[in-house]
Amino acid sequence: METDLSALFDALAFDADGLIPAIAQQADTGEVLMMAWMNRDSLAETLATGHVCYWSRSRKSLWRKGESSGQVQTLVALRPDCDGDTLLLLVNQKGVACHTGRRTCFYREWGKDGFTVLMDPEISEAELYGKKG
Amino acid sequence: METDLSALFDALAFDADGLIPAIAQQADTGEVLMMAWMNRDSLAETLATGHVCYWSRSRKSLWRKGESSGQVQTLVALRPDCDGDTLLLLVNQKGVACHTGRRTCFYREWGKDGFTVLMDPEISEAELYGKKG
Repeated sequence: METDLSALFDALAFDADGLIPAIAQQADTGEVLMMAWMNRDSLAETLATGHVCYWSRSRKSLWRKGESSGQVQTLVALRPDCDGDTLLLLVNQKGVACHTGRRTCFYREWGKDGFTVLMDPEISEAELYGKKG
Repeated sequence: METDLSALFDALAFDADGLIPAIAQQADTGEVLMMAWMNRDSLAETLATGHVCYWSRSRKSLWRKGESSGQVQTLVALRPDCDGDTLLLLVNQKGVACHTGRRTCFYREWGKDGFTVLMDPEISEAELYGKKG
């Protein structure tokens, strides 16, 4: 039996483009991995499959995270915020979340002396996107 | 000497309204507390004072977090994401982040049986906003 999503959608405030920001956090470590956008279709697919699917604003299409790189996100829990305009996704991230090959997209820190890079890539972009299939 | 913010601003992709989403995460525990928006002015003020200041889209004004409730956020680190269109703020949250009196705004979880509330308020909204000054 499919879960009725109307109560969820009613509780969410999608923006004028039908989108809502979604923060992906590694469930066990608490590491914030990335932020991307969802629409109703991508959220419904995520809940149906258990694999996180975003909406790509640049490509204007569903973005099944890891589809080309293999670095999928499995959904552990879905937590909307108090006013329903942001989603927190607790996930299990396979490999790396960032297209640069780093574990998280938030790998740079701004300080008095400019940017510091906090971590190296774990895998090259060529390996991530070039050698599959 | 003031830090020149032009290198930071150049690395960020503010949206058409001059805004960028900012995720606040408790620095030591990794708890994701809230997501709000910043513009250049609120970000500059945050870096200058060390207290997190957002941009309120509803009030169209600077939103000095905790100004009315006392529940301030002290900035520990600022980490823009790979493409510069989201900020991760590591903070020390005094008291609670959520206007409902809960520690985090992400206090509800969606599951097969609908929403589950994960935590109770630590302080009432009346205490948060009514009794100050």
